[in-house]
Amino acid sequence: MQTRVGKRTAEAAFRIALQFVDEGTITMDEAIGRTSGDQLAMLMFPQFDTRGNLVEIARGIPASPGAAVGEAVFDSKRAFDMSKAGKKVILVRRETSPDDLVGMVAAEGILTSRGGKTSHAAVVARGMGKTAICGTDAISVDERANLFTVGTHTVYEGDIISIDGTTGIVYLGAVPVVASSVTSYLEGRVSAETDEASPVVKAVHRILTHADSRRKLLVRTNADTPEDAIRARILGAQGVGLCRTEHMFLGERRAYVERLVLAENEDVQRGVIAEMEPLQRADFVGIMMAMSGLPVTIRLLDPPLHEFLPSLVDLSSQMARSEALGEEIPARDKALFAAVRRLHESNPMLGLRGVRLGILIPELYKMQVRALVHASLEVKKLGHDPKPEVMIPLVSTQRELLYLRETLEEEIAQTFKGTNQVIDMPIGTMIETPRAAITADRLAVHADFVSFGTNDLTQLTWAFSRDDVESTFLPRYLDLELLPFNPFESLDQAGVGILVRQASELSRKVRSDFKLGVCGEHGGDPRSIHFFHELNLDYVSCSPFRVPIARLESGRAAVAK
Amino acid sequence: MQTRVGKRTAEAAFRIALQFVDEGTITMDEAIGRTSGDQLAMLMFPQFDTRGNLVEIARGIPASPGAAVGEAVFDSKRAFDMSKAGKKVILVRRETSPDDLVGMVAAEGILTSRGGKTSHAAVVARGMGKTAICGTDAISVDERANLFTVGTHTVYEGDIISIDGTTGIVYLGAVPVVASSVTSYLEGRVSAETDEASPVVKAVHRILTHADSRRKLLVRTNADTPEDAIRARILGAQGVGLCRTEHMFLGERRAYVERLVLAENEDVQRGVIAEMEPLQRADFVGIMMAMSGLPVTIRLLDPPLHEFLPSLVDLSSQMARSEALGEEIPARDKALFAAVRRLHESNPMLGLRGVRLGILIPELYKMQVRALVHASLEVKKLGHDPKPEVMIPLVSTQRELLYLRETLEEEIAQTFKGTNQVIDMPIGTMIETPRAAITADRLAVHADFVSFGTNDLTQLTWAFSRDDVESTFLPRYLDLELLPFNPFESLDQAGVGILVRQASELSRKVRSDFKLGVCGEHGGDPRSIHFFHELNLDYVSCSPFRVPIARLESGRAAVAK
Repeated sequence: MQTRVGKRTAEAAFRIALQFVDEGTITMDEAIGRTSGDQLAMLMFPQFDTRGNLVEIARGIPASPGAAVGEAVFDSKRAFDMSKAGKKVILVRRETSPDDLVGMVAAEGILTSRGGKTSHAAVVARGMGKTAICGTDAISVDERANLFTVGTHTVYEGDIISIDGTTGIVYLGAVPVVASSVTSYLEGRVSAETDEASPVVKAVHRILTHADSRRKLLVRTNADTPEDAIRARILGAQGVGLCRTEHMFLGERRAYVERLVLAENEDVQRGVIAEMEPLQRADFVGIMMAMSGLPVTIRLLDPPLHEFLPSLVDLSSQMARSEALGEEIPARDKALFAAVRRLHESNPMLGLRGVRLGILIPELYKMQVRALVHASLEVKKLGHDPKPEVMIPLVSTQRELLYLRETLEEEIAQTFKGTNQVIDMPIGTMIETPRAAITADRLAVHADFVSFGTNDLTQLTWAFSRDDVESTFLPRYLDLELLPFNPFESLDQAGVGILVRQASELSRKVRSDFKLGVCGEHGGDPRSIHFFHELNLDYVSCSPFRVPIARLESGRAAVAK
Repeated sequence: MQTRVGKRTAEAAFRIALQFVDEGTITMDEAIGRTSGDQLAMLMFPQFDTRGNLVEIARGIPASPGAAVGEAVFDSKRAFDMSKAGKKVILVRRETSPDDLVGMVAAEGILTSRGGKTSHAAVVARGMGKTAICGTDAISVDERANLFTVGTHTVYEGDIISIDGTTGIVYLGAVPVVASSVTSYLEGRVSAETDEASPVVKAVHRILTHADSRRKLLVRTNADTPEDAIRARILGAQGVGLCRTEHMFLGERRAYVERLVLAENEDVQRGVIAEMEPLQRADFVGIMMAMSGLPVTIRLLDPPLHEFLPSLVDLSSQMARSEALGEEIPARDKALFAAVRRLHESNPMLGLRGVRLGILIPELYKMQVRALVHASLEVKKLGHDPKPEVMIPLVSTQRELLYLRETLEEEIAQTFKGTNQVIDMPIGTMIETPRAAITADRLAVHADFVSFGTNDLTQLTWAFSRDDVESTFLPRYLDLELLPFNPFESLDQAGVGILVRQASELSRKVRSDFKLGVCGEHGGDPRSIHFFHELNLDYVSCSPFRVPIARLESGRAAVAK
């Protein structure tokens, strides 16, 4: 009930605020203060088209917003198998546990009969951005018989249901999903100026326009593809704050990294890297064209190499099986197995990644800046205005940064040489380790800008591996109120925030206008944005979807007293 | 050459300093200033008896001190196999890589022909406390032929060699090892007052006695067994600063933890925990008797549960093999496999461990404090003076500490009830996470004392998993001088030290006499001890062997201007 009211309230909040403005009762500043990013988010989700004949069968706690349709499944393994077979499924459980992760990833949405907003299902679903309804106590789930009953209805495996994570309503059958009119407007498919625009769209337009005129924080986006960059720019992004180049070597291109790791000598390694360069260059061209005139921050390769390789557990089992059956194991498989075993780490999050990889295999990072130089020249030649920035990840000490900066500057200069052109290419770093935060003054001396990677900073400050803790004890912690909220959803201002504040102050001591940004997920979180505004940061960077929310909230922060 | 001189210098330093004192040229304060913990450490290592006929064949860089004798082996897998067959081996390699870890663990000592003090072999050997000589460029290692040549000598696999990690000398054959006279004195087997005591022993005795009279830092020890506690007490320890209870559930007792994890319901779980209690109690009795009259800090279970279980990789291979061969898999094995898979974490260091385990399975920690109460009463009944302290690990937030403190206080009160006795049992916590450090004032409100776990704090502040980085990029970092030293050997005062200082100041704001200690390995490192003295900490805790070194260095710190 509350959320349905909440949703109506969202629409009303925008419309009524402007009504008051038009009546001269409040100012535009006051009007944006009366709306919120959370309300805007509610208006942006796709919704069920509730005009037809609907069979509402239950209401639960809306735990993670969105609208999902699929076949009911009562077992995670089964959810995984069915999804692999191309079916859309809704995972229905009494409650979920870490064992259900595979099913949760595979499903369109999650429905549970027990647990609240801090249950395992709720916390994990929100972390995944997956639609979920929890604590639907009217339904009675029989996991052995693969069915649930509610009132006179019985829903068997394979029956289609629709769940609305924004309202908490469960429907029988497939309810048609419609895009939100607000999203259509934000994505430029509907103009707010025309008659076809609904009153709420017109209201959102006026509110956002005013927020944009007041805010001090720039809003950039995290984008790894030209498509994301274009989408975010339409949604109002003022540049790319984080382009994760590792995402460009997943999927089909994984083979390059595999060959890189298996290379028997440096010549072979160099050969593979040379093959990677044109691909990388094409990626950069697309993104910088989409963001012409706006900065694009390219983060050099960050994750541990073994993330690109098959899992050690899977490979070991495969080898054991082949051996047991007396099958011949191809030399390539043996080499791969040996490499995976060699690269295996106890705690990859704290191992050979980021800047460390760049120092151990400098040719990789050099290739990336060469690709960026060539891409920038190409974009310029096509008549656009490229504004590339290079960002070095996971730095803990000044010396790492200086060492790599010198290496890359030389490579950049070498690459420009002979082209008779130079494009400015600032080199910055991230503050992700607590050590980088508390020694930010020393890093700032060698960085043109700094961006806070608040995801990693949260993991390290708390000693929380997000992958592990959200599915084990975090729900219990939220339940016992040992944590007031999930620190991965909203910045822990009383802890991690202390480090962010210290680092900001330390780097601004070096240069009072030192450029500071945020590219963790907190960049799109309303509460966190107010905090970043107070610290006088220059920009936040968030996923394309959250760009409008960040625009509104940084405007609100600017007018807040 | 330099180190032989270095070693003679160590003896001379102690003797000459006292000669000057006796001549009235310098004071005792000045005398301890002219010696050092590093010198004392050199005098404490066992040495080769060099009086016989020795065949010195080469000299390399003394990379990790000690005296080791064994059969030369040129392959890590082979070293592992031979060691398993009961042989003592010296691993000889051109240089080592992460692939050699298994052989390095198995060997008595490591000898390489390449690389210096910051090579992989050197860094890893020091981390393991294993004797090593590196960069012995006179020897020519042929890893395929399993031999090395030096001058006219050829050493084949199986030939015995002796390596002196303190001097860097390699000998052919088995050189007899003799205990150090200084260690004999420190361990109470030789009195410094008698004539049989050598001049260096007399000198060490006077220096240490004076250091003890001046130092402000108390020196405790890390001890998990009564034997270690006794040994450390003889070496001068003033209590146990860290008793790692997880070490009490390894070896044969692993089975209890396995049963705990496999328990199908809470009743079975409670049953297993009840069986663990008397064992735990007996452990505590022995240690508190050894330390009668001195504080014993019991750290509640810290590591992730899966550390007590078989590895997921091994089990998966085993299951795959059995399946391939069509063998029936016993139900117990299946259950174990499922449990291991469920408990598997991507980054166990940042997962379900320490206080988190205590909150998820409160019965475990309750059992531990019950055992401690009963053990204390037993020790008292036997006429000794138990001084137990309870320490809660890996806290990140005040609420965790408060929640668990209340739970444990109630359990302690319940257990004392009816015995008509009460023994004071302070409850403290550790500062291991950066968040605990920067919010130490909030923790101090609910803690009777705080101990810095500087190993974990270093790992988290740097984002360094020690297990991973020492064998991968750390040697390269030391080589490139990106790091001036290994931050796990000596406290990183410019980074981690900032957090330690902040936390000390924050907690002393709550109570000016708030009790602060250190129980990471840095508690036994000379440079770090001076830093801890400056911060006015109350005690350091280190391994028994390093207790005399810590006594000397804290004395030196106290008289330093």
